[in-house]
Amino acid sequence: MSHFIAQPKQGVPFVSVQAMAKLINSLGVENVLLDLTNKLETDFARWTEFDKSPRYAAHSPEGVIELMPVSDGQMFSCKYVNGHPKNTFRELQTVAAFGILADVDSGYPVMISEMCLLTALRTAATSAMVAKYLAPKNSTTLTLIGNGAQSEFQALAFKAVLGITHIRLYDIDKSASKKAFANLSACGLNVTICNSVQEAVKGADIITTCTADKTNATILTNDMIPQGVHINAIGGDCPGKTELDARLLERANVFVEYEPQTRIEGEIQQMSPSFTVTEFHNVINKQSLGRTSQDELTIFDGVGFASEDFTALVFIRDELIKTGEFALLDLITQQADPRNLFSVLSDQPLVKEHVA
Amino acid sequence: MSHFIAQPKQGVPFVSVQAMAKLINSLGVENVLLDLTNKLETDFARWTEFDKSPRYAAHSPEGVIELMPVSDGQMFSCKYVNGHPKNTFRELQTVAAFGILADVDSGYPVMISEMCLLTALRTAATSAMVAKYLAPKNSTTLTLIGNGAQSEFQALAFKAVLGITHIRLYDIDKSASKKAFANLSACGLNVTICNSVQEAVKGADIITTCTADKTNATILTNDMIPQGVHINAIGGDCPGKTELDARLLERANVFVEYEPQTRIEGEIQQMSPSFTVTEFHNVINKQSLGRTSQDELTIFDGVGFASEDFTALVFIRDELIKTGEFALLDLITQQADPRNLFSVLSDQPLVKEHVA
Repeated sequence: MSHFIAQPKQGVPFVSVQAMAKLINSLGVENVLLDLTNKLETDFARWTEFDKSPRYAAHSPEGVIELMPVSDGQMFSCKYVNGHPKNTFRELQTVAAFGILADVDSGYPVMISEMCLLTALRTAATSAMVAKYLAPKNSTTLTLIGNGAQSEFQALAFKAVLGITHIRLYDIDKSASKKAFANLSACGLNVTICNSVQEAVKGADIITTCTADKTNATILTNDMIPQGVHINAIGGDCPGKTELDARLLERANVFVEYEPQTRIEGEIQQMSPSFTVTEFHNVINKQSLGRTSQDELTIFDGVGFASEDFTALVFIRDELIKTGEFALLDLITQQADPRNLFSVLSDQPLVKEHVA
Repeated sequence: MSHFIAQPKQGVPFVSVQAMAKLINSLGVENVLLDLTNKLETDFARWTEFDKSPRYAAHSPEGVIELMPVSDGQMFSCKYVNGHPKNTFRELQTVAAFGILADVDSGYPVMISEMCLLTALRTAATSAMVAKYLAPKNSTTLTLIGNGAQSEFQALAFKAVLGITHIRLYDIDKSASKKAFANLSACGLNVTICNSVQEAVKGADIITTCTADKTNATILTNDMIPQGVHINAIGGDCPGKTELDARLLERANVFVEYEPQTRIEGEIQQMSPSFTVTEFHNVINKQSLGRTSQDELTIFDGVGFASEDFTALVFIRDELIKTGEFALLDLITQQADPRNLFSVLSDQPLVKEHVA
């Protein structure tokens, strides 16, 4: 039962948005990003232990609802996540995610957690993990094209993990850049708002594209990008949603998380099925080369993979075990005789609910 | 926003085990089973509106963890459900299920609910719905082979929907039969505990098999079963788990929920891929015949389909809207500016958590 935070009969530990924010603040967001980057690296190194499948996606005219299940044989995790760009205009989140962590041996859920914050953290930590291997040496400047919900987390992960000091911001909506400027200046970064993509990418060592439009856009054109930079392309993450000029992909050494999923969802959906990419775990495990020279153009075609959520959920579980502070949900029946489910209708409550 | 129980900013409505038991008791379990049977019939009649896929299953030596997503274009539902027969021996449930109902237009979760009780109810109501069309006329006697968690719900659904008055019980574990006897006698049914399968099926109009062993068992052999009965075979529901003699299937007219899933999980996994079955929605929609004579042997090879959970979750949502009584979970971030997710780390709580 060592996978459990609480005894199964006590209820299912629940991490609300407030509890997650409190936990991250108490640990320090940069510490969390650094720790999570290391845990991701450890789990990517044991890539073959995970039972992997492309995510389940229910597409609709306004967006997509996805399920991202994965298991390492000990624990199972699944994230529910949507992507609805137009939610912004009705004051709802574009991404409303939550996650389930379960024990494979008993099939019992071990934790249910918010994953709006946690997804932002794991996405940023994944970008930083990849950039550790692919970004040019001594990188100091990160350009963020798209200054929405993900941008601050990206900046802080690159600061914590790679020592980035300068951030260049561009968004078609200037108020988004101003928001990111305010948040990031307060974190000790040297931040510049730019008036065009072309201006923003000037002098960048690393360029992150994280725009939200569900279209085949060309955020970065071929002529804008010199050799020697690392592009962290994380906004193109579903069919019909891309950010890069195909000629950039042709020029670059392209790295992906899980090739079968990225072929469907990533920038490389623009390319022929024979276009060569490298699964990133092979770089960690020294079976493939990462960056081979300072002049090389590298691209991480990141779409987000279920194992990253797994790593993040296990990280939170381990922190909850340390603190011992968590709410419990009365989600699973608790009758004395498992075969007597019917008795639950007449029994007195067996679990006292208390959500902090 | 008519799909929502509460405004999205209020939090995600949560139905605990206690809340579900309270709701079912207040409505009356037989009324719920009757209502649910009618709702299932309505949803099966609009079968083509559902976006269907076989469930996702992560198998392990001790059991299986499944995800059952489905959408009708308006609402999306997904059930998390495990099947771990050995959990009984460690005083855990063999099935620990919960469900998510979401709004397709915004991608927001609308409700999170326990589904141990709700699955038992929807499974029983599905069996009763099918039997309405397939059981011999004026059926009065139901045999239950396997007297575990599902058995009382089955008996009461058949009582409420078909007017069944007599129940014959058999289980290899006599204490399970005694438990079902006590529960069902108290519900006004005439109940008999039998010493063998052969004895139990005597005089039955309908035979339900709902055993739990994850093996290819032969609970009903060919010689035990006369023509003219309806077999409701619901225990065989994953690869390597069957209950019926193949010769019974050959003799019978076999009905299934969703053929691609039942070929993998149902009794018909024993048969060749060309073995003829009828998807049950065709019977409701008068595109296929149900029972054609009193002498016919009919079999419902039920494995449980995601749309049944969808129907059940929507049913509970509608009841919650009526009562206005529900708990709320702080599961989705609520910052004023959707793009300013980072602000959640510093903001004061926006949702006051209160779980009843």
